[in-house]
Amino acid sequence: MRAKILTHVRCHLGDAKIAVETGVDGLDVVIGTSSHLREHSHGKDMEYIKNTAIEVIEFVKSKGKEIRFSSEDSFRSDLVDLLSLYAAVDKVGVDRVGIADTVGCASPRQVYDLVRTLRGVVSCDIETHFHNDSGCAIANAFCALEAGATHVDTSVLGIGERNGITPLGGLMARMIVADRDYVLSRYNIKKLKEVEDLVADLVEVNVPFNNYITGFCAFTHKAGIHAKAILNNPSTYEIIDPKDFGMSRYVHFASRLTGWNAIKSRAEQLDIKMSDAQYKECTAKIKAIADVRKIALDDTDSIIRTYYHNLHSEQEKPLLPGLTPEEAKKFAEVEKGLGGLKEQRELETAANAGAA
Amino acid sequence: MRAKILTHVRCHLGDAKIAVETGVDGLDVVIGTSSHLREHSHGKDMEYIKNTAIEVIEFVKSKGKEIRFSSEDSFRSDLVDLLSLYAAVDKVGVDRVGIADTVGCASPRQVYDLVRTLRGVVSCDIETHFHNDSGCAIANAFCALEAGATHVDTSVLGIGERNGITPLGGLMARMIVADRDYVLSRYNIKKLKEVEDLVADLVEVNVPFNNYITGFCAFTHKAGIHAKAILNNPSTYEIIDPKDFGMSRYVHFASRLTGWNAIKSRAEQLDIKMSDAQYKECTAKIKAIADVRKIALDDTDSIIRTYYHNLHSEQEKPLLPGLTPEEAKKFAEVEKGLGGLKEQRELETAANAGAA
Repeated sequence: MRAKILTHVRCHLGDAKIAVETGVDGLDVVIGTSSHLREHSHGKDMEYIKNTAIEVIEFVKSKGKEIRFSSEDSFRSDLVDLLSLYAAVDKVGVDRVGIADTVGCASPRQVYDLVRTLRGVVSCDIETHFHNDSGCAIANAFCALEAGATHVDTSVLGIGERNGITPLGGLMARMIVADRDYVLSRYNIKKLKEVEDLVADLVEVNVPFNNYITGFCAFTHKAGIHAKAILNNPSTYEIIDPKDFGMSRYVHFASRLTGWNAIKSRAEQLDIKMSDAQYKECTAKIKAIADVRKIALDDTDSIIRTYYHNLHSEQEKPLLPGLTPEEAKKFAEVEKGLGGLKEQRELETAANAGAA
Repeated sequence: MRAKILTHVRCHLGDAKIAVETGVDGLDVVIGTSSHLREHSHGKDMEYIKNTAIEVIEFVKSKGKEIRFSSEDSFRSDLVDLLSLYAAVDKVGVDRVGIADTVGCASPRQVYDLVRTLRGVVSCDIETHFHNDSGCAIANAFCALEAGATHVDTSVLGIGERNGITPLGGLMARMIVADRDYVLSRYNIKKLKEVEDLVADLVEVNVPFNNYITGFCAFTHKAGIHAKAILNNPSTYEIIDPKDFGMSRYVHFASRLTGWNAIKSRAEQLDIKMSDAQYKECTAKIKAIADVRKIALDDTDSIIRTYYHNLHSEQEKPLLPGLTPEEAKKFAEVEKGLGGLKEQRELETAANAGAA
């Protein structure tokens, strides 16, 4: 694995000495700079912080190690304090300064403004670290990059204190939308799912149903109006190509929201040809059955086949065998209501004709 | 429930007529305006869209219903087309215009700019709708509000097409950080967990481990450096007070990252008083055991109690009974390594003394 090992230590000469002895490639030195942390955590003032930072940085550099200096809780720190501290550590040759939204309070435009300002103050790299308490960890990372940050802290599935930090997969989703060629040339994103599954397994969590890219809903399409366009051209409703990540899309047919275009496409996959009016009626029947009981994809296939069979045979088969008497009764009632759908189709046709 | 019922229909006089007859309070009329959707979905040009929109709006208003007009895929639409369309519908008295990031491609600063511009063009309300494909649905909603939007579409747990839209809970997390008094005066946020559990149950998904506010990690603190400050003053590492949502925080003791301050606080809860040096040694022992096998909160309590007992008794008890011979051997090895920790503590004390 092409990776550097850095260790995270407090801004303390004692910690730094021990860390250097472990043989790591570099040190991430951190100290809280907000009044909250200065009062309730370490109890030091800004002058002490600046002097200790310089002492630690000079020591680490004298040992030939890489060093990043970061404030903690940067977004609740005094801006002038912060910039003067960063200017001082930049001057003594720190490799990278870090800003951290330790409590997850920062908003995207605030991040952009702070990083933009910092970019004008230091010449070293800028690392950023965002917690996700208020749901902006990905957006904040992206705004930081737009403003000139060079590094973003991520973790697999975003795992970290409280509800976590910027997730690797979510940031990839954001970045591939912004610049697909760059992402494909730099990252082996087809491995994302494997890495996430491995970590989820080790820490004993489930990958959330709505997880970026790899969650089971990420590329699932359900609404009829969407399904038609997706089948025509996926880019209409997909900004990310699932294939880039080694994933595939799933157009959900069996649902109240099923559109006849999805059923037509599925029927064609099953090599069943009908007229548009027949596809539409078949779709209405599927909707009616789905109103009565949960149906799976296989059920849809079998309904399409039976509907087609019934069109060409004198002996009518039940569309979905095995309905309970109660379900059959409910289905008959719902079927009766299909008149409304027909009327809607007529209105639609009229409207389309008017438009043409 | 104090709610209006609005129905979502295509920008079609036929659809609008049926919708009005259902007795809803209002209509959300939508049409795709990006070239992607104009080519691959409905196939209409902008002139047709504008004329149909005006026709539908005038019809719906003549029936005394509320009407919102929204473009779909607004962020991949031509800006001039979009603004001219919105200006036209605003002029005929639409109640609200909507912009929608249908594919989840928009970034926060882009949202801010578009909504800001739109705010100068129309005088009606502005509704916004953000999908979460690239992880910005909450951030985009927040930037839209900052830019003058009046409405944000949300759903419970963000459930919607693909990986969903702005989640209600996540937006509450973002908003309470921005303006706690406003959120507490407007929303009964103590109900959030109940609503989420209900919906998760109905649609058969698990609430993600890292869900905003209600996920089991949302208010869990683990790192030693954090635990100390959280016990001192929760606002050091929490931007959201879990109590506002009827939740509570959990400081995780049994972990490699346990700090002695957390153990001290826990011991005090258990009415066990020791010296700081003893708390530190007890903490080191807990870390050593946690290295050997997974321990739960109860285990930590029992280790603290046994450690305290051993201090005052000639007969030493094992800190964690029931270790396998292999675990016991490993624990003895790890315990031997605790010298390093002592050394670190001495360095720390020296550094602190130097600073004082």
